[in-house]
Amino acid sequence: MENSKYLKTVIIDKLIENEATQVEDVTIDESRLNLYLNGEKAISMMCIPKDQDAHAIGFLMSENVISSMKDIKELKVSEDGLRVDVIATINEDSLEHLYTEKTLVSGCGGGVTGNVEGGVEIPFNQTAFKVKPETISSEIKIFYHESELYNLTGCVHKAMIYLLDGNTITAEDIGRHNAIDKVVGKCKLQGLDTTKSILFVSGRLSSEMVTKAVMHKIPIIISRTAPTYLGVQTAHKHGVTLIGFARGKKMNIYTHAGRIDV
Amino acid sequence: MENSKYLKTVIIDKLIENEATQVEDVTIDESRLNLYLNGEKAISMMCIPKDQDAHAIGFLMSENVISSMKDIKELKVSEDGLRVDVIATINEDSLEHLYTEKTLVSGCGGGVTGNVEGGVEIPFNQTAFKVKPETISSEIKIFYHESELYNLTGCVHKAMIYLLDGNTITAEDIGRHNAIDKVVGKCKLQGLDTTKSILFVSGRLSSEMVTKAVMHKIPIIISRTAPTYLGVQTAHKHGVTLIGFARGKKMNIYTHAGRIDV
Repeated sequence: MENSKYLKTVIIDKLIENEATQVEDVTIDESRLNLYLNGEKAISMMCIPKDQDAHAIGFLMSENVISSMKDIKELKVSEDGLRVDVIATINEDSLEHLYTEKTLVSGCGGGVTGNVEGGVEIPFNQTAFKVKPETISSEIKIFYHESELYNLTGCVHKAMIYLLDGNTITAEDIGRHNAIDKVVGKCKLQGLDTTKSILFVSGRLSSEMVTKAVMHKIPIIISRTAPTYLGVQTAHKHGVTLIGFARGKKMNIYTHAGRIDV
Repeated sequence: MENSKYLKTVIIDKLIENEATQVEDVTIDESRLNLYLNGEKAISMMCIPKDQDAHAIGFLMSENVISSMKDIKELKVSEDGLRVDVIATINEDSLEHLYTEKTLVSGCGGGVTGNVEGGVEIPFNQTAFKVKPETISSEIKIFYHESELYNLTGCVHKAMIYLLDGNTITAEDIGRHNAIDKVVGKCKLQGLDTTKSILFVSGRLSSEMVTKAVMHKIPIIISRTAPTYLGVQTAHKHGVTLIGFARGKKMNIYTHAGRIDV
């Protein structure tokens, strides 16, 4: 199994009604990935050390440090997988802002985000991309069933981008902010257009999750669970369609319902 | 209801089988709380603006910036609830380290933690505190049933400290790292001893959750869901008993099982 290298076996005491048995259990790897930008340490992220190149690209673009793939001259993942070196033309202000903002985000969050509220001007998302509720219902079903690492460890978040042509790209991580950065990075690496796409996220939609959709001009963001009020406000303000509690044939449309083709 | 001020009503389109109805829905507030330390902005946190004093104290002590309550000379929460001013004797190295580490934590994480791995020497937890599995089973049941904000919004994490005398202290937040900081801060404000206590956490036990237990010398940490491998390693190294998948009369003991009195 391709994923086995992200799993670590531990010996545990399984207790059932006061009866303890020693058994093997599988846990997910959690490693510190160090991101170097033009030779200098930019940041560390605790994550599953998988798709590191996509992770770095998605993160840097989420935070507006890099504007497009053309800005990247070189990207190298170290042999042990714990260091990514990026040589690129960067937006110094955004990098600086990342550090000075020092905002701890609330839910499975990206720690030092803040570039949407900060200096970056994001145009209102006007994309006329429509999707049928049936498509959402069937895609969210697939989204929740196909997660090998979650099934094995119960400790993984997932993000999926559903593209205009019906294809999907997925990524997993311990943090859902990382999962989103990874899936966006994968799309960028493959030259895929995310401006007419849907972002499916496992877990709650707090403001920084919605912010990532905003930064990448993704018109629709969907979760099986709840958004926060600030998440809803962020989506409203920037023209993003936000759907929560998408389960079976039910869903709650919080903002910009016009993109849902009833 | 005391909690109603943290709830925000929004109008949504509820879609069931292609049939849309406009209804009211309740979302949780998510606000930026600014923490000022000796007159200077230290950090912002996205959180539910509730128990701000406890939140600030718990956070500063989790990160070793403040060592004990005696170091705090003054603590003031602004009228709008979005600013906490702390005047205190601080550990400058820990504060500096908080900024320079720039670590994005993985799961619902504290963004810039790292003081356990960093400069701070933490003695191995030798506390001879024992608990019966029956106590854990009954407490986790109560823990999961009594969360008004979760029941209303589906968007809240909870932390609870079970004390030696059987009393419990609880706190809620959008981020589970905040919930832990808040509940620890509440104990500190009330002068309660957490060195013989159990920390119950909703959600997964990634390394930074375990780190908080380590920093506050809490000997046992318990969740209904999974730990990461690094979470298990951190608990192992520092003498903390880590229990995951505590459900009904079952639980997995990952480390230091000696404290569970079978």
